[in-house]
Amino acid sequence: MRELKDRIISDGRVLPGNIIKVDGFLNHRVDIGLMRRLAKEFYSRFGDRGVTLIMTAEASGIALASITAEEFGVPLLFAKKAKSDNVEGGLIKSEIYSYTYKKKVTLLVSAEWISSADRVLIIDDFMANGEAMRGLVEITEKVGAALVGVGIAVEKGFQGGGDRLRAQGVDVQSLAIIESAEPGKIVFRE
Amino acid sequence: MRELKDRIISDGRVLPGNIIKVDGFLNHRVDIGLMRRLAKEFYSRFGDRGVTLIMTAEASGIALASITAEEFGVPLLFAKKAKSDNVEGGLIKSEIYSYTYKKKVTLLVSAEWISSADRVLIIDDFMANGEAMRGLVEITEKVGAALVGVGIAVEKGFQGGGDRLRAQGVDVQSLAIIESAEPGKIVFRE
Repeated sequence: MRELKDRIISDGRVLPGNIIKVDGFLNHRVDIGLMRRLAKEFYSRFGDRGVTLIMTAEASGIALASITAEEFGVPLLFAKKAKSDNVEGGLIKSEIYSYTYKKKVTLLVSAEWISSADRVLIIDDFMANGEAMRGLVEITEKVGAALVGVGIAVEKGFQGGGDRLRAQGVDVQSLAIIESAEPGKIVFRE
Repeated sequence: MRELKDRIISDGRVLPGNIIKVDGFLNHRVDIGLMRRLAKEFYSRFGDRGVTLIMTAEASGIALASITAEEFGVPLLFAKKAKSDNVEGGLIKSEIYSYTYKKKVTLLVSAEWISSADRVLIIDDFMANGEAMRGLVEITEKVGAALVGVGIAVEKGFQGGGDRLRAQGVDVQSLAIIESAEPGKIVFRE
Protein backbone atom coordinates (compact mmCIF):
# COMPACT_ATOMS: atom_id res chain seq x y z
CA MET A 1 0.00 0.00 0.00
CA ARG A 2 1.66 3.13 -1.31
CA GLU A 3 0.54 5.52 1.44
CA LEU A 4 1.90 3.29 4.20
CA LYS A 5 5.25 2.75 2.47
CA ASP A 6 5.59 6.51 1.91
CA ARG A 7 4.81 7.13 5.57
CA ILE A 8 7.42 4.59 6.70
CA ILE A 9 10.00 6.33 4.53
CA SER A 10 9.06 9.84 5.69
CA ASP A 11 8.44 9.17 9.39
CA GLY A 12 10.09 5.83 10.22
CA ARG A 13 13.59 5.52 11.58
CA VAL A 14 16.03 2.63 11.50
CA LEU A 15 17.95 1.92 14.70
CA PRO A 16 20.86 -0.46 15.28
CA GLY A 17 19.74 -4.08 15.53
CA ASN A 18 17.33 -3.77 12.61
CA ILE A 19 14.78 -2.02 14.80
CA ILE A 20 12.42 0.00 12.66
CA LYS A 21 10.74 2.70 14.66
CA VAL A 22 7.27 3.63 13.50
CA ASP A 23 6.17 4.91 16.88
CA GLY A 24 5.13 8.32 15.58
CA PHE A 25 2.15 6.97 13.64
CA LEU A 26 1.65 3.24 14.27
CA ASN A 27 2.52 1.79 17.66
CA HIS A 28 2.90 4.52 20.29
CA ARG A 29 1.36 7.68 18.91
CA VAL A 30 -1.24 6.40 16.47
CA ASP A 31 -2.54 8.25 13.41
CA ILE A 32 -6.12 7.01 13.53
CA GLY A 33 -6.97 8.44 10.11
CA LEU A 34 -4.23 6.25 8.66
CA MET A 35 -5.56 3.26 10.64
CA ARG A 36 -8.96 3.82 9.02
CA ARG A 37 -7.40 3.74 5.55
CA LEU A 38 -5.45 0.57 6.39
CA ALA A 39 -8.66 -0.99 7.73
CA LYS A 40 -10.46 -0.17 4.47
CA GLU A 41 -7.62 -1.84 2.59
CA PHE A 42 -8.05 -4.98 4.73
CA TYR A 43 -11.77 -4.86 4.02
CA SER A 44 -11.10 -4.67 0.28
CA ARG A 45 -8.95 -7.80 0.59
CA PHE A 46 -10.95 -9.89 3.08
CA GLY A 47 -14.40 -8.28 3.12
CA ASP A 48 -16.11 -10.97 1.02
CA ARG A 49 -15.03 -13.93 3.13
CA GLY A 50 -17.65 -13.98 5.86
CA VAL A 51 -15.43 -12.75 8.70
CA THR A 52 -17.25 -12.93 12.06
CA LEU A 53 -14.43 -11.94 14.42
CA ILE A 54 -11.29 -9.82 14.34
CA MET A 55 -8.57 -11.09 16.65
CA THR A 56 -5.32 -9.48 17.78
CA ALA A 57 -2.91 -9.68 20.71
CA GLU A 58 -2.44 -6.87 23.18
CA ALA A 59 -1.19 -4.25 23.11
CA SER A 60 -0.19 -2.15 20.14
CA GLY A 61 -2.26 -3.97 17.54
CA ILE A 62 -5.48 -3.10 19.33
CA ALA A 63 -5.78 0.33 17.70
CA LEU A 64 -5.64 -0.97 14.13
CA ALA A 65 -7.69 -4.05 14.99
CA SER A 66 -10.43 -1.91 16.58
CA ILE A 67 -10.83 0.25 13.52
CA THR A 68 -10.72 -2.85 11.30
CA ALA A 69 -13.42 -4.55 13.40
CA GLU A 70 -15.64 -1.53 12.93
CA GLU A 71 -14.97 -1.59 9.18
CA PHE A 72 -16.09 -5.25 9.09
CA GLY A 73 -18.98 -4.70 11.53
CA VAL A 74 -17.87 -7.53 13.80
CA PRO A 75 -16.49 -7.72 17.36
CA LEU A 76 -12.82 -7.51 18.25
CA LEU A 77 -11.26 -10.12 20.52
CA PHE A 78 -7.82 -9.32 21.84
CA ALA A 79 -5.69 -12.02 23.41
CA LYS A 80 -4.23 -11.12 26.78
CA LYS A 81 -0.62 -11.75 27.67
CA ALA A 82 0.07 -13.72 30.86
CA LYS A 83 -2.42 -14.16 33.66
CA SER A 84 -4.31 -11.38 35.36
CA ASP A 85 -7.09 -11.60 37.93
CA ASN A 86 -9.62 -10.42 35.43
CA VAL A 87 -9.45 -13.49 33.21
CA GLU A 88 -10.95 -16.56 34.83
CA GLY A 89 -11.29 -20.22 33.79
CA GLY A 90 -12.17 -21.52 30.36
CA LEU A 91 -9.05 -20.21 28.72
CA ILE A 92 -7.49 -21.14 25.42
CA LYS A 93 -3.74 -20.64 25.59
CA SER A 94 -0.73 -20.49 23.35
CA GLU A 95 2.87 -20.16 24.46
CA ILE A 96 4.94 -17.78 22.41
CA TYR A 97 8.39 -16.26 22.71
CA SER A 98 8.39 -12.49 22.91
CA TYR A 99 11.49 -11.04 21.25
CA THR A 100 10.43 -7.63 22.54
CA TYR A 101 10.51 -8.75 26.16
CA LYS A 102 12.98 -11.61 25.67
CA LYS A 103 10.88 -14.14 27.52
CA LYS A 104 8.09 -16.64 27.09
CA VAL A 105 4.62 -15.17 27.15
CA THR A 106 1.29 -16.94 27.23
CA LEU A 107 -1.47 -15.64 24.99
CA LEU A 108 -4.90 -16.17 26.50
CA VAL A 109 -8.40 -15.88 25.17
CA SER A 110 -11.57 -16.83 26.95
CA ALA A 111 -13.32 -19.82 25.38
CA GLU A 112 -16.55 -17.96 25.94
CA TRP A 113 -15.89 -15.46 23.17
CA ILE A 114 -14.73 -17.58 20.24
CA SER A 115 -16.18 -20.78 18.83
CA SER A 116 -15.84 -23.26 15.99
CA ALA A 117 -18.55 -21.30 14.16
CA ASP A 118 -16.29 -18.23 13.90
CA ARG A 119 -14.45 -17.10 10.81
CA VAL A 120 -11.46 -15.23 12.14
CA LEU A 121 -9.32 -12.51 10.61
CA ILE A 122 -6.19 -11.84 12.66
CA ILE A 123 -4.92 -8.27 12.52
CA ASP A 124 -1.71 -6.76 13.86
CA ASP A 125 0.24 -3.58 13.36
CA PHE A 126 3.64 -5.15 13.08
CA MET A 127 5.13 -8.56 12.41
CA ALA A 128 8.77 -9.54 12.75
CA ASN A 129 9.40 -13.08 13.95
CA GLY A 130 5.67 -13.65 13.89
CA GLU A 131 5.45 -15.31 17.27
CA ALA A 132 2.30 -13.48 18.34
CA MET A 133 0.64 -14.32 15.02
CA ARG A 134 1.70 -17.96 15.31
CA GLY A 135 0.12 -18.03 18.77
CA LEU A 136 -3.15 -16.54 17.52
CA VAL A 137 -3.26 -18.99 14.62
CA GLU A 138 -2.75 -21.81 17.13
CA ILE A 139 -5.63 -20.50 19.23
CA THR A 140 -8.00 -20.52 16.24
CA GLU A 141 -6.88 -24.10 15.48
CA LYS A 142 -7.48 -25.21 19.07
CA VAL A 143 -10.99 -23.75 18.95
CA GLY A 144 -11.69 -25.21 15.52
CA ALA A 145 -12.55 -21.79 14.10
CA ALA A 146 -11.92 -21.03 10.45
CA LEU A 147 -8.89 -18.83 9.88
CA VAL A 148 -9.71 -16.46 7.05
CA GLY A 149 -6.29 -14.85 7.04
CA VAL A 150 -3.82 -12.58 8.73
CA GLY A 151 -3.65 -8.86 7.94
CA ILE A 152 -0.54 -6.96 8.96
CA ALA A 153 0.33 -3.31 8.52
CA VAL A 154 4.15 -3.52 8.56
CA GLU A 155 6.01 -6.81 8.13
CA LYS A 156 9.75 -7.15 8.55
CA GLY A 157 10.13 -9.64 5.72
CA PHE A 158 13.76 -10.38 6.49
CA GLN A 159 12.83 -11.85 9.87
CA GLY A 160 10.78 -14.58 8.26
CA GLY A 161 7.68 -14.70 10.46
CA GLY A 162 5.27 -13.93 7.64
CA ASP A 163 6.86 -16.38 5.20
CA ARG A 164 6.78 -19.19 7.77
CA LEU A 165 3.02 -18.70 8.12
CA ARG A 166 2.58 -18.48 4.33
CA ALA A 167 4.47 -21.77 3.98
CA GLN A 168 1.86 -23.30 6.30
CA GLY A 169 -0.88 -22.15 3.96
CA VAL A 170 -2.02 -19.11 5.95
CA ASP A 171 -3.16 -16.17 3.79
CA VAL A 172 -0.89 -13.48 5.25
CA GLN A 173 -1.39 -10.08 3.66
CA SER A 174 0.91 -7.29 4.75
CA LEU A 175 0.41 -3.75 3.53
CA ALA A 176 4.14 -3.02 3.59
CA ILE A 177 6.87 -5.67 3.69
CA ILE A 178 10.32 -4.38 4.54
CA GLU A 179 13.06 -6.50 2.98
CA SER A 180 16.02 -4.57 4.32
CA ALA A 181 16.52 -1.55 6.49
CA GLU A 182 19.57 0.61 7.02
CA PRO A 183 19.56 4.20 8.22
CA GLY A 184 18.41 6.24 5.23
CA LYS A 185 17.59 3.21 3.08
CA ILE A 186 14.48 1.07 3.50
CA VAL A 187 13.76 -1.46 0.75
CA PHE A 188 10.28 -2.93 0.34
CA ARG A 189 9.31 -6.27 -1.16
CA GLU A 190 7.50 -5.78 -4.48
CA MET B 1 -25.25 6.81 29.90
CA ARG B 2 -28.31 4.60 29.81
CA GLU B 3 -27.17 2.19 27.10
CA LEU B 4 -23.93 1.39 28.90
CA LYS B 5 -25.64 0.83 32.25
CA ASP B 6 -28.20 -1.46 30.60
CA ARG B 7 -25.40 -3.41 28.96
CA ILE B 8 -23.55 -3.82 32.26
CA ILE B 9 -26.74 -5.16 33.84
CA SER B 10 -27.52 -7.51 30.94
CA ASP B 11 -24.01 -8.76 30.12
CA GLY B 12 -21.82 -7.97 33.13
CA ARG B 13 -21.14 -10.42 35.92
CA VAL B 14 -20.06 -9.86 39.49
CA LEU B 15 -17.40 -12.20 40.84
CA PRO B 16 -16.13 -12.57 44.41
CA GLY B 17 -13.76 -9.78 45.41
CA ASN B 18 -15.89 -7.08 43.83
CA ILE B 19 -14.62 -8.00 40.38
CA ILE B 20 -17.05 -6.84 37.74
CA LYS B 21 -16.58 -8.74 34.54
CA VAL B 22 -17.41 -6.81 31.40
CA ASP B 23 -15.15 -8.84 29.18
CA GLY B 24 -17.89 -9.76 26.72
CA PHE B 25 -18.22 -6.23 25.37
CA LEU B 26 -15.59 -3.91 26.86
CA ASN B 27 -12.18 -5.31 27.72
CA HIS B 28 -11.57 -8.68 26.09
CA ARG B 29 -14.15 -9.11 23.37
CA VAL B 30 -15.00 -5.55 22.36
CA ASP B 31 -18.28 -4.36 20.87
CA ILE B 32 -16.88 -1.69 18.58
CA GLY B 33 -20.32 -0.28 17.74
CA LEU B 34 -20.80 0.42 21.45
CA MET B 35 -17.31 1.97 21.60
CA ARG B 36 -18.36 4.35 18.81
CA ARG B 37 -21.44 5.43 20.78
CA LEU B 38 -19.35 5.94 23.94
CA ALA B 39 -16.84 7.97 21.90
CA LYS B 40 -19.66 10.19 20.59
CA GLU B 41 -20.77 10.73 24.17
CA PHE B 42 -17.23 11.81 25.12
CA TYR B 43 -17.24 14.14 22.14
CA SER B 44 -20.52 15.67 23.26
CA ARG B 45 -18.94 16.36 26.67
CA PHE B 46 -15.41 17.41 25.69
CA GLY B 47 -15.65 18.25 22.00
CA ASP B 48 -15.61 22.04 22.44
CA ARG B 49 -12.45 22.20 24.53
CA GLY B 50 -9.72 22.18 21.90
CA VAL B 51 -8.46 18.66 22.54
CA THR B 52 -5.28 17.94 20.52
CA LEU B 53 -4.37 14.50 21.85
CA ILE B 54 -6.15 11.47 23.31
CA MET B 55 -4.04 9.55 25.80
CA THR B 56 -4.57 6.13 27.38
CA ALA B 57 -2.48 3.36 28.93
CA GLU B 58 -2.08 -0.05 27.35
CA ALA B 59 -3.76 -2.37 26.96
CA SER B 60 -7.53 -2.64 27.19
CA GLY B 61 -8.30 1.07 26.95
CA ILE B 62 -6.74 1.29 23.50
CA ALA B 63 -9.90 0.14 21.71
CA LEU B 64 -12.14 2.85 23.18
CA ALA B 65 -9.39 5.47 23.01
CA SER B 66 -8.76 4.72 19.31
CA ILE B 67 -12.39 5.21 18.38
CA THR B 68 -12.54 8.34 20.55
CA ALA B 69 -9.42 9.77 18.88
CA GLU B 70 -11.06 9.28 15.51
CA GLU B 71 -14.22 11.00 16.79
CA PHE B 72 -12.10 14.00 17.86
CA GLY B 73 -9.91 13.90 14.74
CA VAL B 74 -6.69 13.87 16.77
CA PRO B 75 -3.91 11.30 17.35
CA LEU B 76 -3.93 8.70 20.07
CA LEU B 77 -0.92 8.30 22.35
CA PHE B 78 -0.89 5.20 24.49
CA ALA B 79 1.50 4.90 27.42
CA LYS B 80 3.50 1.70 27.50
CA LYS B 81 3.93 -0.33 30.63
CA ALA B 82 7.52 -1.19 31.66
CA LYS B 83 10.48 -1.08 29.35
CA SER B 84 10.69 -2.75 25.98
CA ASP B 85 13.39 -2.49 23.33
CA ASN B 86 11.16 -0.49 21.09
CA VAL B 87 11.00 2.58 23.30
CA GLU B 88 14.26 4.47 23.44
CA GLY B 89 15.46 7.56 25.33
CA GLY B 90 13.52 10.74 25.98
CA LEU B 91 10.90 9.08 28.11
CA ILE B 92 8.43 10.62 30.50
CA LYS B 93 7.65 8.17 33.28
CA SER B 94 5.19 7.65 36.07
CA GLU B 95 5.30 4.87 38.64
CA ILE B 96 1.95 3.32 39.43
CA TYR B 97 0.77 0.32 41.39
CA SER B 98 -1.14 -2.20 39.31
CA TYR B 99 -3.82 -3.91 41.38
CA THR B 100 -4.44 -6.22 38.43
CA TYR B 101 -0.87 -7.53 38.43
CA LYS B 102 -0.14 -6.77 42.11
CA LYS B 103 3.14 -5.00 41.40
CA LYS B 104 4.62 -1.64 40.54
CA VAL B 105 4.47 -0.73 36.89
CA THR B 106 6.08 2.18 35.09
CA LEU B 107 4.03 4.05 32.55
CA LEU B 108 6.15 5.46 29.73
CA VAL B 109 5.52 7.90 26.95
CA SER B 110 8.06 9.25 24.54
CA ALA B 111 8.70 12.98 25.02
CA GLU B 112 8.71 13.26 21.26
CA TRP B 113 4.97 12.78 20.97
CA ILE B 114 3.51 15.10 23.60
CA SER B 115 4.36 18.71 24.40
CA SER B 116 3.32 21.64 26.55
CA ALA B 117 1.23 22.84 23.60
CA ASP B 118 -1.04 19.80 23.84
CA ARG B 119 -4.53 19.77 25.29
CA VAL B 120 -4.97 16.20 26.51
CA LEU B 121 -8.08 14.13 27.06
CA ILE B 122 -7.32 10.90 28.89
CA ILE B 123 -9.60 7.98 28.02
CA ASP B 124 -9.89 4.54 29.59
CA ASP B 125 -12.37 1.72 29.55
CA PHE B 126 -12.35 1.02 33.25
CA MET B 127 -11.31 2.76 36.46
CA ALA B 128 -11.14 1.21 39.90
CA ASN B 129 -8.34 2.50 42.11
CA GLY B 130 -7.41 4.90 39.37
CA GLU B 131 -3.69 4.28 39.49
CA ALA B 132 -3.25 4.23 35.70
CA MET B 133 -5.23 7.46 35.40
CA ARG B 134 -3.19 9.06 38.19
CA GLY B 135 -0.04 8.10 36.29
CA LEU B 136 -1.30 9.59 33.04
CA VAL B 137 -2.33 12.80 34.81
CA GLU B 138 1.18 12.97 36.30
CA ILE B 139 2.70 12.56 32.83
CA THR B 140 0.67 15.48 31.45
CA GLU B 141 1.81 17.58 34.44
CA LYS B 142 5.47 16.66 33.88
CA VAL B 143 5.18 17.71 30.25
CA GLY B 144 3.28 20.89 31.09
CA ALA B 145 0.41 19.92 28.80
CA ALA B 146 -3.11 21.11 29.58
CA LEU B 147 -5.31 18.34 30.98
CA VAL B 148 -8.78 18.81 29.55
CA GLY B 149 -10.26 15.92 31.46
CA VAL B 150 -10.56 12.19 31.96
CA GLY B 151 -13.26 10.17 30.23
CA ILE B 152 -14.00 6.69 31.57
CA ALA B 153 -16.52 4.12 30.39
CA VAL B 154 -17.04 2.16 33.62
CA GLU B 155 -15.92 3.48 37.01
CA LYS B 156 -16.05 1.42 40.18
CA GLY B 157 -17.08 4.35 42.36
CA PHE B 158 -16.68 2.43 45.62
CA GLN B 159 -12.94 2.02 45.02
CA GLY B 160 -12.41 5.77 45.12
CA GLY B 161 -10.01 6.34 42.23
CA GLY B 162 -12.30 8.70 40.36
CA ASP B 163 -13.24 10.72 43.43
CA ARG B 164 -9.58 11.17 44.41
CA LEU B 165 -8.90 12.71 41.00
CA ARG B 166 -12.05 14.87 41.21
CA ALA B 167 -10.87 16.14 44.61
CA GLN B 168 -7.67 17.29 42.89
CA GLY B 169 -9.75 19.30 40.43
CA VAL B 170 -9.58 16.90 37.50
CA ASP B 171 -12.75 16.82 35.36
CA VAL B 172 -13.43 13.07 35.50
CA GLN B 173 -16.50 12.03 33.54
CA SER B 174 -17.53 8.40 33.71
CA LEU B 175 -20.38 7.06 31.62
CA ALA B 176 -21.37 4.53 34.27
CA ILE B 177 -20.33 4.67 37.92
CA ILE B 178 -20.94 1.50 39.90
CA GLU B 179 -21.54 2.21 43.58
CA SER B 180 -22.02 -1.36 44.72
CA ALA B 181 -21.96 -4.74 43.10
CA GLU B 182 -23.25 -8.07 44.32
CA PRO B 183 -24.23 -11.01 42.15
CA GLY B 184 -27.59 -10.07 40.66
CA LYS B 185 -27.55 -6.52 42.01
CA ILE B 186 -25.49 -3.69 40.54
CA VAL B 187 -26.23 -0.18 41.84
CA PHE B 188 -25.16 2.88 39.84
CA ARG B 189 -24.40 6.38 41.14
CA GLU B 190 -27.07 8.85 40.01
